Amino acid sequence: MSEIKVVTNMLETNDLLTEQNKTLLKEKGIYVINLMSAPGSGKTSILEKVIFRLKNDVKIAVIEGDLYTSKDAERIEAQGVPVVQINTGGACHLDACMIRNAIEALSLNGVDLLIIENVGNLVCPAEFDIGEDIRIMVFSAPEGNDKPLKYPLMFEKSSAIVLNKVDLVKYTNFSREEFYKDIKAVNANAKIFETSCLKDLGIDEFCQWLKGILDENRR
Amino acid sequence: MSEIKVVTNMLETNDLLTEQNKTLLKEKGIYVINLMSAPGSGKTSILEKVIFRLKNDVKIAVIEGDLYTSKDAERIEAQGVPVVQINTGGACHLDACMIRNAIEALSLNGVDLLIIENVGNLVCPAEFDIGEDIRIMVFSAPEGNDKPLKYPLMFEKSSAIVLNKVDLVKYTNFSREEFYKDIKAVNANAKIFETSCLKDLGIDEFCQWLKGILDENRR
Repeated sequence: MSEIKVVTNMLETNDLLTEQNKTLLKEKGIYVINLMSAPGSGKTSILEKVIFRLKNDVKIAVIEGDLYTSKDAERIEAQGVPVVQINTGGACHLDACMIRNAIEALSLNGVDLLIIENVGNLVCPAEFDIGEDIRIMVFSAPEGNDKPLKYPLMFEKSSAIVLNKVDLVKYTNFSREEFYKDIKAVNANAKIFETSCLKDLGIDEFCQWLKGILDENRR
Repeated sequence: MSEIKVVTNMLETNDLLTEQNKTLLKEKGIYVINLMSAPGSGKTSILEKVIFRLKNDVKIAVIEGDLYTSKDAERIEAQGVPVVQINTGGACHLDACMIRNAIEALSLNGVDLLIIENVGNLVCPAEFDIGEDIRIMVFSAPEGNDKPLKYPLMFEKSSAIVLNKVDLVKYTNFSREEFYKDIKAVNANAKIFETSCLKDLGIDEFCQWLKGILDENRR
């Protein structure tokens, strides 16, 4: 009887594929961002604005992760950059295997920057490396200032935190003071940007920082 | 050598414990609500308002589910009802085993209604029965009207959907028309309530409906 192989550690498998994704993307000189958040924080809106501002200087490709629908990929495609939609079919995060398949489906020649928009979920995506160079998280002010301590992992693992929908702060009980204090407690090194996609606020500052990171990486 | 038992199907184990929870709670005549949402939709604020309005007529107990902190349980305790905090330590949803342990820690004598506030996550909690009679979801308008089709399971499995933070609708591009149309597509039978905890809107209607459900269940 032949031996049946059993995969016992899904995280180990994910680690292996993550390394393969990293090697492949590094060979092509592509910088990779894993963009994460809770549902409805405005990741896709931020992405639209970043692409609009950077696409003449930087060749960008996007992988969109959603449980269902291709709504987000359609929005990105309208910005004129290559995009692939992953539908997880109910699964709560992207993993390295999904990314590998998406990479194969994308035309990556000449691409400088690959942005992977993860599934909207403040918990699970933070647990999985998918081959990214950095993680950036978007957090919308109406979600409330108590979240960094209640859901610390994503805040802890993100190089930058984009506090979005700041135009709504004045209509809520969101406390900037508490929010900044709690972020400092979980991730003192995080760069924080305040944005509003609806009012087009703060996007330039975020894009400048992003551009700086890319320039530094090219050297 | 003694046989080592291997639990192969976690969902099956959860089903078994769910049935045990249901039997135990039914014997005590306790109606159980599984309250679900994405992070920051306002579940705890809704709960505070419901408890304040119903606690003289209905004996309520609460189980609070969070990854970390006891912030929510402290808010509920201040309302003067028995509460237990479950900290999942990073896990993305409550399961029937956690609920069994919490039930043992709660004083349930004379309790009519047990409300279980699940972890803030629009994906995973919807996949797990934990012994509830009904599911209610809270959805905050700033999350965007596109979510029912992108995250259909929780919308589909909820008897009532509380659209919260409606005071912010006028400051966003949220389309009520699209939202109601999409909810009809995934769950035509869902009862929908519009609320704002900050402005104290719509809570009475929701409480009346809840009271009706409880009265019907007692008959």
